[in-house]
Amino acid sequence: MDNFTFKSPTQFIFGRGTHAQAGKYAARCGAKKVMVLYGGGSVITNGVLQTVVESLDAAGLDFIVAGGVQPNPVSSYVYQAIEAAREEKVDFMLAVGGGSVIDTAKAVAAGVPYDGDFLDFYRGKGVKEALPVGVVLTIAAAGSEGSPNTVITDEETKIKKGATGECLRPQFAILNPELTFTLSAYQSACGISDMMAHIFERYFTKTKDNAVTDRICEGLLLAITEKAMDVIIDREDYEAQAAIMWAGMLAHNNICGVGREQDWGSHALAHQLSALFDAAHGAALAVVFPAWMKYVVDEDVELFARIAHNVWGVAMSDDKKQMALDGIAAYEKFLRGIGMPTNLAQLDVPEEAIPQLVELAFAPGGSTIGYFKKLTPADVEAVYRLAL
Amino acid sequence: MDNFTFKSPTQFIFGRGTHAQAGKYAARCGAKKVMVLYGGGSVITNGVLQTVVESLDAAGLDFIVAGGVQPNPVSSYVYQAIEAAREEKVDFMLAVGGGSVIDTAKAVAAGVPYDGDFLDFYRGKGVKEALPVGVVLTIAAAGSEGSPNTVITDEETKIKKGATGECLRPQFAILNPELTFTLSAYQSACGISDMMAHIFERYFTKTKDNAVTDRICEGLLLAITEKAMDVIIDREDYEAQAAIMWAGMLAHNNICGVGREQDWGSHALAHQLSALFDAAHGAALAVVFPAWMKYVVDEDVELFARIAHNVWGVAMSDDKKQMALDGIAAYEKFLRGIGMPTNLAQLDVPEEAIPQLVELAFAPGGSTIGYFKKLTPADVEAVYRLAL
Repeated sequence: MDNFTFKSPTQFIFGRGTHAQAGKYAARCGAKKVMVLYGGGSVITNGVLQTVVESLDAAGLDFIVAGGVQPNPVSSYVYQAIEAAREEKVDFMLAVGGGSVIDTAKAVAAGVPYDGDFLDFYRGKGVKEALPVGVVLTIAAAGSEGSPNTVITDEETKIKKGATGECLRPQFAILNPELTFTLSAYQSACGISDMMAHIFERYFTKTKDNAVTDRICEGLLLAITEKAMDVIIDREDYEAQAAIMWAGMLAHNNICGVGREQDWGSHALAHQLSALFDAAHGAALAVVFPAWMKYVVDEDVELFARIAHNVWGVAMSDDKKQMALDGIAAYEKFLRGIGMPTNLAQLDVPEEAIPQLVELAFAPGGSTIGYFKKLTPADVEAVYRLAL
Repeated sequence: MDNFTFKSPTQFIFGRGTHAQAGKYAARCGAKKVMVLYGGGSVITNGVLQTVVESLDAAGLDFIVAGGVQPNPVSSYVYQAIEAAREEKVDFMLAVGGGSVIDTAKAVAAGVPYDGDFLDFYRGKGVKEALPVGVVLTIAAAGSEGSPNTVITDEETKIKKGATGECLRPQFAILNPELTFTLSAYQSACGISDMMAHIFERYFTKTKDNAVTDRICEGLLLAITEKAMDVIIDREDYEAQAAIMWAGMLAHNNICGVGREQDWGSHALAHQLSALFDAAHGAALAVVFPAWMKYVVDEDVELFARIAHNVWGVAMSDDKKQMALDGIAAYEKFLRGIGMPTNLAQLDVPEEAIPQLVELAFAPGGSTIGYFKKLTPADVEAVYRLAL
């Protein structure tokens, strides 16, 4: 285990009806003027936005509301929102939505007090100061509600990049599983793929001796796979949605990643599919991750055999390589079972796009991607080809 | 799953050499005058206290040092320390030790700004205000380094009681597994018994549908049992000590307990063994918990069969009751394997003491103890008798 520091100070408020407490918690954070961000119209039609706004009003808070945040959120929106937030003297960002809305809220939160271009933070500059952020979560997926991370697509370069800073961890996050009842099965499946990927990026490491964290990762994966189909079949299965929602937070607040080198190569490859082909993040990960696993399995056959047994129920055998491959196959089968694509064609990505995808993946700089196996451009091309 | 709130804001600093950073982190918390608390002389002989004190000095902090905190810490010490802290205008408590030292530091932290008797907090009054507390952990056991709880023995009544308050969660906790190398195998075994008990108190619940939390509990128990013997055999097995240390925190910061009714009956029964017979807390739990399990197994045979399979490796069978009993037997065998007592005689507690133990257990008031099965005095007597 490597030395590490860990701090996850977000206040989580979990359960039925809890979104009506948004105003109370924002007020406790000292908010005076709140910018409420949301994405599509679903939070309007299902009344969630109305309830949240009423709670702000009841708490005596002033606020402005801005909708229209897109999936795979873009820089132009952030620029506009920063300007509006400054004009209106906003002192608190409240995201009502999923990862795209939360990541946008974090981008605005970092951008408002910063003199330069907010995209500097997405080019490697650490975020040291930001407006406080609160969350009312409506989709279990990105884990941004408990993480210090945000991902934005730079529209000029089409590059999807992340920024990070401990001050970006939300002050509070309200997790009401009922709010996910109106999602489509496909949206939920994307979320499930995404949170599993967040665990895999941490699980597959060259750092030895991670007994506790390995078991937490495996436990979360077991709970997710146990409840995934319930969520797909019955959108209003509260307990299943609750399990998925809580797992999504734990998958990404880094309790699954302390004390070990993490990979994140598959995310880098998936981001390009979203940037170029507007693939849903979870769907892109469902295509990339099994291919990546097949490509890197020989880096640590024992670890792949372990997860095959502990998570996918593959019987113990002396042939660890076969166990490892059976585990990857079980993961792919699971993804198909919940309705996820597992090859590029299903995302309408043609083979001819691969060179451009590779180029884009390396556009941010650097000669390799990931850590479990450091992928060269030739490796990345091979992974994409395994996903054909 | 029940609605819940969860906030674990403590900054954890984990790894080799980290105790030298105590001063830096105390300074970041705004400390000016620190009271350093410790227990026995081990932190003097192994140089830990010296390193910590030098780090305070290097950070420009003023401090006073107070040692002699006993296992199962007592109220008289707390009264004296509160007086000293007030006289010296202490504004930060730094515990260098295990649960006893941390719990004493929390008691002093709550007592300094409080006009009344600090024991009020241990008679049910919630702690709303306290001096900030920091921790340099020297034994993995109590989990107090990440919890909002403290337990003190009232010397007058001999009753060991808990207090709680979110403000008692440490600001930071430095976890250096190297500091546990000088513990005896028995001390480590007590710690292991204690952290497992913290998980069991949460795992055994009547609240249904805890997919995620159940898996986290099971994962931690698997990691603990996997590494326990390594720690007992080789005191300087860093990776094993690291796993046990991190698991001890996670066992008690309530990530294992969110959204469910918890029991804590076994702790109530174990506390009396410590108060009357000065039994080490972990040893007392090792005696009480298997007995409690045997007594309450019929409350939820399925749950006991589940943990028997998932943690203790008992083969699946149609006879769930037998699986459940085999699991409890495996737990007892494990405890004996690491050198823990599993009956009252091994703690030098005579059968004749049972009526007094029962009386003491109910002295704080109330007609039942615990929630998984609400134990009447007759039940409590039966549990103690099962531990003979």
